[in-house]
Amino acid sequence: MAAAPDPVISVDAMGGDRGPATVVAGVDRCAREMPDLRFLLHGPENVLTPLVARRAALAGRCEVRHAAQAVAMTDKPSVALRRAQDTSMWSALSAIKAGEAQAAVSCGNTGALMAMATMRLRRAEGVDRPAIAVFWPSRSASGHTIVLDVGADVRADPTALAQFAVMGAEYARVALDLDRPRVGLLNVGSEEGKGRPELQEASRLICENADHGGYDWRGYVEGGDLCGDKADVIVTDGFTGNVALKSAEGAAAFIGDELKRAFRHTWLSRLAALMAMPSLSRMKRRIDPRRVNGGVFLGLRGAVVKSHGSADATGVAAAISLAARMARTGFTERVAGRAAFLTMQRQALGGAAAQ
Amino acid sequence: MAAAPDPVISVDAMGGDRGPATVVAGVDRCAREMPDLRFLLHGPENVLTPLVARRAALAGRCEVRHAAQAVAMTDKPSVALRRAQDTSMWSALSAIKAGEAQAAVSCGNTGALMAMATMRLRRAEGVDRPAIAVFWPSRSASGHTIVLDVGADVRADPTALAQFAVMGAEYARVALDLDRPRVGLLNVGSEEGKGRPELQEASRLICENADHGGYDWRGYVEGGDLCGDKADVIVTDGFTGNVALKSAEGAAAFIGDELKRAFRHTWLSRLAALMAMPSLSRMKRRIDPRRVNGGVFLGLRGAVVKSHGSADATGVAAAISLAARMARTGFTERVAGRAAFLTMQRQALGGAAAQ
Repeated sequence: MAAAPDPVISVDAMGGDRGPATVVAGVDRCAREMPDLRFLLHGPENVLTPLVARRAALAGRCEVRHAAQAVAMTDKPSVALRRAQDTSMWSALSAIKAGEAQAAVSCGNTGALMAMATMRLRRAEGVDRPAIAVFWPSRSASGHTIVLDVGADVRADPTALAQFAVMGAEYARVALDLDRPRVGLLNVGSEEGKGRPELQEASRLICENADHGGYDWRGYVEGGDLCGDKADVIVTDGFTGNVALKSAEGAAAFIGDELKRAFRHTWLSRLAALMAMPSLSRMKRRIDPRRVNGGVFLGLRGAVVKSHGSADATGVAAAISLAARMARTGFTERVAGRAAFLTMQRQALGGAAAQ
Repeated sequence: MAAAPDPVISVDAMGGDRGPATVVAGVDRCAREMPDLRFLLHGPENVLTPLVARRAALAGRCEVRHAAQAVAMTDKPSVALRRAQDTSMWSALSAIKAGEAQAAVSCGNTGALMAMATMRLRRAEGVDRPAIAVFWPSRSASGHTIVLDVGADVRADPTALAQFAVMGAEYARVALDLDRPRVGLLNVGSEEGKGRPELQEASRLICENADHGGYDWRGYVEGGDLCGDKADVIVTDGFTGNVALKSAEGAAAFIGDELKRAFRHTWLSRLAALMAMPSLSRMKRRIDPRRVNGGVFLGLRGAVVKSHGSADATGVAAAISLAARMARTGFTERVAGRAAFLTMQRQALGGAAAQ
């Protein structure tokens, strides 16, 4: 497949916890690393124009699109949708819709972004529900496992889970450079017959679709496999995925704090901390989930990357790099291609159910 | 409430990964620490009698009850139930049923133990579904959060979740010495209206029952709060609880391995590891979930503690101590007392649903 020439990334400059200056700093970092990238930056002109003017690397490559309003982190999706049209988020998504950009990035409110993206870009053919996929540090060769859905929708029926498997595998091919990703379904045990009844049906569908989806079916995986090496893509509903990830993150943060406390405990341990610092920092960089910034919205007619609200310039740059990679590989079209057969399958299932 | 005199603990000696010698070593350790405890030990007489005879502390305080068969870790609950009667697990539970012991402990197969315990002991009045509750290391003052259900049943309707809140709070009172435990409901966000619809209904019920249940309702909590300080008792269904706990455990194990690797990285970091060892070991003891061994089955007419299959003598002793505490405090009767009003509530709800 031919790479898109000179990809354009549409960036919502508002809504992040650290404000537009941090977003512009992240854009600038990417611009210096990837000279072919161009940017559309959305937000209040009087705020953004001076910020962009200060960055030499952005000269002639970053166009500011005025949008007076920003979606607040606390806005409910329904409220955000009602007054969407003047917001930087809507403007950033509209540029994709209009074909002016190949991928969008926002640090804003996840729920609002998903609601607007679904309304503005619409779902890809064959996809019932979009999903949010994230990287999770793990023991696998690539260093990461992809988990989806982590919060687009709190429910997922077997058909939706089967679609997640296909979309997640395609994402793993693009983002983790894997030819034939290993796909697992999150459950409470790896034996057949375990867990909720709808997972049995999902398991059957995901297994059936393996060749169409270009992945290896690895069966059920458990919470412990998030950090493991059993699967490159772990499929689950948005409720379970969100809880699993936040539980793992919470445990990691707790251990980190306890470690700091342990190292402060005696003068010997303080000295030890100093000596071990380079090795520990290297490890922290490797496994910190915030280093691989960006939840990707899968199943829409356009690539959308949700950066952490609290992302710093490095984090924003990571999210934009990911968006650039998706733009370059024609990710949306690739997912659409893989998902095409899902439409037929869904029709067949619908027909069977109607009988 | 008067403490039961000379509590008797019924111990299934078979089914653990390390065999009956480890279980007897754990019983011995408890016997030395708590001179008032007595024990019923279940398993093949020819194996257990010599093991017990070797332990001076058990002389005259530990009766062996012959049971020829053991439930294997790989047995499905349905299979185990069919040939239950000759097993050490069934025998251990029967002693509770007969009033010969106040609490039972087993290292065996969780699913089989839950199935047998439900059949042999039956559910307490007011309780639709028993739940498995565990301690989880956290930032709270007691050092632990109680999480339930972690796997008794993959589903839980709002009524069941409300019952879990009442039972979990009573367990926190007994096991964490808290007067009025804080109860939270696991969800994907702390705002009202978040998550699955059944959680809204559960939230309403749990809030309503706070005074009857003797707890403070803290609303929704998230996966990150497992290790946090927002609630002493976190209520969820067995599917989500299992995934949350295994995800957190997996993350902890992953970080532990990465830490070891980081410390081996240079000679300086090796030396640092050596110097920090005492502080690190202290921390590990404090936060290792295996140190507080024992999933407790709540909602049955009898106290049952499930020890980790891989528990060593210290782990088995921890599970027996927990069982002893439950026996001494008349835990089963206390839960029954608290749960009595749930029967009326359920009838009222049933009536409302039927209208």
